Amino acid sequence: MTKQGTLGVAVIGTGRMGADHVRRITDVTSGARVAAVVDIDAERANHLAGRIDGCTAYSDPAAAMTAPEVDAVLIASPGPAHEAALLRAFEHDLPVLCEKPLTPDATSALRVMEAEQKLGHRRVSVGFMRRYDAEYLKLKALLDGGRFGRTLMLHCRHRNVSTPPGFTNQMTINDSVVHEIDTTRWLLDQEITAVTVLRPTPSTAAPEALSDPQLVLFETSGGAVVDVEIFVNCGFGYQVQCEAVGESGSARIGDGHHMVTNSAGRWGGEIDQDFVSRFADAYDREVQRWVDATRRGETEGPSVWDGYAAAAVCEAGVRAQTTGERTATTLVERPALYR
Amino acid sequence: MTKQGTLGVAVIGTGRMGADHVRRITDVTSGARVAAVVDIDAERANHLAGRIDGCTAYSDPAAAMTAPEVDAVLIASPGPAHEAALLRAFEHDLPVLCEKPLTPDATSALRVMEAEQKLGHRRVSVGFMRRYDAEYLKLKALLDGGRFGRTLMLHCRHRNVSTPPGFTNQMTINDSVVHEIDTTRWLLDQEITAVTVLRPTPSTAAPEALSDPQLVLFETSGGAVVDVEIFVNCGFGYQVQCEAVGESGSARIGDGHHMVTNSAGRWGGEIDQDFVSRFADAYDREVQRWVDATRRGETEGPSVWDGYAAAAVCEAGVRAQTTGERTATTLVERPALYR
Amino acid sequence: MTKQGTLGVAVIGTGRMGADHVRRITDVTSGARVAAVVDIDAERANHLAGRIDGCTAYSDPAAAMTAPEVDAVLIASPGPAHEAALLRAFEHDLPVLCEKPLTPDATSALRVMEAEQKLGHRRVSVGFMRRYDAEYLKLKALLDGGRFGRTLMLHCRHRNVSTPPGFTNQMTINDSVVHEIDTTRWLLDQEITAVTVLRPTPSTAAPEALSDPQLVLFETSGGAVVDVEIFVNCGFGYQVQCEAVGESGSARIGDGHHMVTNSAGRWGGEIDQDFVSRFADAYDREVQRWVDATRRGETEGPSVWDGYAAAAVCEAGVRAQTTGERTATTLVERPALYR
Amino acid sequence: MTKQGTLGVAVIGTGRMGADHVRRITDVTSGARVAAVVDIDAERANHLAGRIDGCTAYSDPAAAMTAPEVDAVLIASPGPAHEAALLRAFEHDLPVLCEKPLTPDATSALRVMEAEQKLGHRRVSVGFMRRYDAEYLKLKALLDGGRFGRTLMLHCRHRNVSTPPGFTNQMTINDSVVHEIDTTRWLLDQEITAVTVLRPTPSTAAPEALSDPQLVLFETSGGAVVDVEIFVNCGFGYQVQCEAVGESGSARIGDGHHMVTNSAGRWGGEIDQDFVSRFADAYDREVQRWVDATRRGETEGPSVWDGYAAAAVCEAGVRAQTTGERTATTLVERPALYR
Repeated sequence: MTKQGTLGVAVIGTGRMGADHVRRITDVTSGARVAAVVDIDAERANHLAGRIDGCTAYSDPAAAMTAPEVDAVLIASPGPAHEAALLRAFEHDLPVLCEKPLTPDATSALRVMEAEQKLGHRRVSVGFMRRYDAEYLKLKALLDGGRFGRTLMLHCRHRNVSTPPGFTNQMTINDSVVHEIDTTRWLLDQEITAVTVLRPTPSTAAPEALSDPQLVLFETSGGAVVDVEIFVNCGFGYQVQCEAVGESGSARIGDGHHMVTNSAGRWGGEIDQDFVSRFADAYDREVQRWVDATRRGETEGPSVWDGYAAAAVCEAGVRAQTTGERTATTLVERPALYR
Repeated sequence: MTKQGTLGVAVIGTGRMGADHVRRITDVTSGARVAAVVDIDAERANHLAGRIDGCTAYSDPAAAMTAPEVDAVLIASPGPAHEAALLRAFEHDLPVLCEKPLTPDATSALRVMEAEQKLGHRRVSVGFMRRYDAEYLKLKALLDGGRFGRTLMLHCRHRNVSTPPGFTNQMTINDSVVHEIDTTRWLLDQEITAVTVLRPTPSTAAPEALSDPQLVLFETSGGAVVDVEIFVNCGFGYQVQCEAVGESGSARIGDGHHMVTNSAGRWGGEIDQDFVSRFADAYDREVQRWVDATRRGETEGPSVWDGYAAAAVCEAGVRAQTTGERTATTLVERPALYR
Repeated sequence: MTKQGTLGVAVIGTGRMGADHVRRITDVTSGARVAAVVDIDAERANHLAGRIDGCTAYSDPAAAMTAPEVDAVLIASPGPAHEAALLRAFEHDLPVLCEKPLTPDATSALRVMEAEQKLGHRRVSVGFMRRYDAEYLKLKALLDGGRFGRTLMLHCRHRNVSTPPGFTNQMTINDSVVHEIDTTRWLLDQEITAVTVLRPTPSTAAPEALSDPQLVLFETSGGAVVDVEIFVNCGFGYQVQCEAVGESGSARIGDGHHMVTNSAGRWGGEIDQDFVSRFADAYDREVQRWVDATRRGETEGPSVWDGYAAAAVCEAGVRAQTTGERTATTLVERPALYR
Repeated sequence: MTKQGTLGVAVIGTGRMGADHVRRITDVTSGARVAAVVDIDAERANHLAGRIDGCTAYSDPAAAMTAPEVDAVLIASPGPAHEAALLRAFEHDLPVLCEKPLTPDATSALRVMEAEQKLGHRRVSVGFMRRYDAEYLKLKALLDGGRFGRTLMLHCRHRNVSTPPGFTNQMTINDSVVHEIDTTRWLLDQEITAVTVLRPTPSTAAPEALSDPQLVLFETSGGAVVDVEIFVNCGFGYQVQCEAVGESGSARIGDGHHMVTNSAGRWGGEIDQDFVSRFADAYDREVQRWVDATRRGETEGPSVWDGYAAAAVCEAGVRAQTTGERTATTLVERPALYR
């Protein structure tokens, strides 16, 4: 219990997610402050920095990382820029919270993993924020407690109101199902060994050429089976649900049944319309936990291995989606650093 | 609105289901009475008949069908005896309510279908009682109303507390999943075109050699995808749930959230422990609807075609279960009588 | 188990409730038929009788009761006509199912009670149909089982969409809250000893001069306290809910959460819009139970005492409503016949 | 958006609530730190201060308030010590977050109110933390939005597992129902004008001489009626529920239906066991909002008027509890400062 050593954070990337993290660290997070913001759009970085006491704007991540007031780095730039920023942070041995995806593919993730191994200790937490959601944490605690025996199946629903222009079939895997890939690995503490994708005739509400919804199936190293409904143009809300079926009981989260109303012939309640309202607390908790661990000199949360494994499963998922066949995943051997 | 012409029913088979139907017709159903009971165990038939006013015991179905007070036949004998009883009933042009399965396999079901076609009109209703469950009826009405657009997916859960001795993998398809086969066909008004079965590492609560749970996947002629969790030794209750996902909305039945209690640190309620408590009303409604239609001279409900199609999908399901491969179903052309 | 001796029922009164009971006995109830219909509107009676096999129309209840095919009487005429019909039925010692209210006030109910006592045995069942509702029966079984200890409180909600023209404050007690009066007495097996009524500023949706909603409070002979929200112009649905609070647990019925949908930004379901959809099964069960008991030569269900006690509490309730004061109820000593 | 001027807080009182606030400000709250802890138990204060960077221990609140690093005061000492601390804070014109109750009775609350008026501006926020609970905030937003018309009734449940030794009838009002007093006033933006208390025969689980449960009724200046079940030895959990009934709809919070499990014949979930788990987020939000407002130079949240009004209604409630009669509340005219 100390407030000594407020953590100076450099936020790299000031788009939607980056700007939101800047606001969070400034207004919500205890024990941290935004010491630097970085964006190739210098004007945007300057504008943002000008509103925060003691914050400097940079257009080059490398420059920000050498600033003495910067103790840690939060990477929220586009995925293709992550690898360079991560490698640069390793040079300065700086703690990093890296928004998902770690990198856009398994090969580049492997390079990051090798670099961190050379560093000799973990420095990166990957931003799979569902691991910090109160309901997922309850479910995880229940499964880990073993009250219902071994977990045999997960039934997952992942629904978005609609997709932005340009959303592709690959993005349903890489941007959306990647969350179920991580929660499956985390909840079960197992690797995903095969992926199958079933594609019903698309909804007429789906943009042309988009297979929506899809049913994605995982098999895991421990013999569990997972089904994921991914439906990104369901029209009615943002819903993330998960039912874990164990040997003697099951548990479901994500119903979102908070305030119940009666009106106009119907009982029920509102469905969240986006991930911001659904997972706001999870983002707050993620950043707070990262700040707390960093100030203690520790590294917690999803590792570079988790980022790599998710990327590898995504690649298998995209192949399974294209071929219609069951597709095995392949992972390198898990390095000692991540065991 | 008339009570004229109380229907005299011959109940063939007086095991658990048969005896329950005898009780139902006698005590619950309006406008019908049990005129005959038939069992190869003459003593059991006599004992049951002796408790019902105006009821005669037979050991031969054929004899019962010639009795003048018999207007209709309810077949509740073991599956292998169904074909002979059905063909005999056709000879007397008697209306039949036939407990599922229609017959044990698709080939014998085809023979029954041909015989009914020769008869020239439908006389058989098959006892897929879920079609008479209040919740399924609500779901069917919602889907048929088209409010949520085309139905894209069904997510089904089918859980039993435990299995009796001798329960086999094939029986999980033929005795249990057969209900989801019928409800899928009925809810969507489509045929099932392919089956895939995923088998997680079995629960330690499952008997040896039984794959339990399993995830059974259907593809349908209209491009929908259906997943069924079948878990017949879940230990905690009898649960039948179904969520239909349409283009603009979803609907779930089977939660069974009637009376909600708070006690000992927990809120919630009781789960039905068997199909008798869960589907008692459905059986009552099924028999009443059959009696009502029969007294009007009509034939309603699941047809011999439905019985045949279910048998054909079961056969594909058992193959899919054994091979681990996606297995296409094959159906004969649908005869005019069943269109 | 017998269908011998189908019960011939005379239905007195063929308005909404009477006609519905005629339909029920004809189409739904096992072991009974409508042998006679009685209405002072001879044309209506004739028209109805003409649609039912073996049914005779009468305009005088007394005439119907002497018909040899009439074994029992169902009184569904307006409340003020009940007393005469009941006394006439006693003359013929006929079993009676009498729609609520037994009679319009406690004094007339007392006269009926005295007459039945002279008869020497119970012949009347009063139509408090909630006692036959599946959820109330579950709640009753739970409370009687004693799992939660003594019941300390009931919280009741009774909501209607809107009232017909001419609905008065007194009718909120006599026609609506009377159901909570009976369920309170039945669930707790105690008498109501005092009534208090709180009247918030009425809803603008309420007709002029109608106090709507109201909060009605009961105290019982066993020291329990009951609150009833009666809101007969709530606009959104017909809802009857009850939470029983015991020493170590509570239980709530009436949420009506059957099919759950997601659409247009909301999860939830439909609220029943009237008592017909909410309590259809209860009415079916009530009549079937009455027919079954009658055919066994027994009398079951709410007694004339229950009808009298409800009337007496209603009278106290109307006084409490007018004066704004806590009002004690007074009952005669309970006769031996009703203990 | 700035982290300039981290707020130095003196926490007065380091019992359960005080220590928890020290932890919160240190570990959770953004933009604040504990600069001083005050306790008459100097050892306890020293021990706590020793674990926090830059924190000084005091045994006299007055001394702490003169320390230059103290910018604001959080009062978490026992109720009888509040008045002196508040008046001293006024001398230094320091912002105060005062745990409820403001003071132990209406008379002392009036003195504080007069002192703050002399100061000429609001400096005190009273710790009615339910106003910061996410579910209550949703309900408040719904009611303020007017979608359901004027609010006619509130139905409240307030249940505790059990009471500590020495818990009295007066404490059920002053310590427990005081929360519903505040939420009623806040949700409806009306004053409470009368209180009635109904006392059922106590639960056998209640300590001797404790009336438990009780039904407490409020009438409000806007003509609404509120019922509160207060049951502080219910045994099964900590439950705070509230249903608001408007002219055209109702809304209920507090069901706590987050993770739903199926096991051992039951569906459902866990009930919170104390206010810490139920309202942890509300406390976090309360303190963060107070810190944020204070750093902006503003005073927000429940005012001294709210603290006074709650005390006055509590006094009426205790009288109503003792006499069994409807008891009117009396308030002084609302000063301009609090309009």
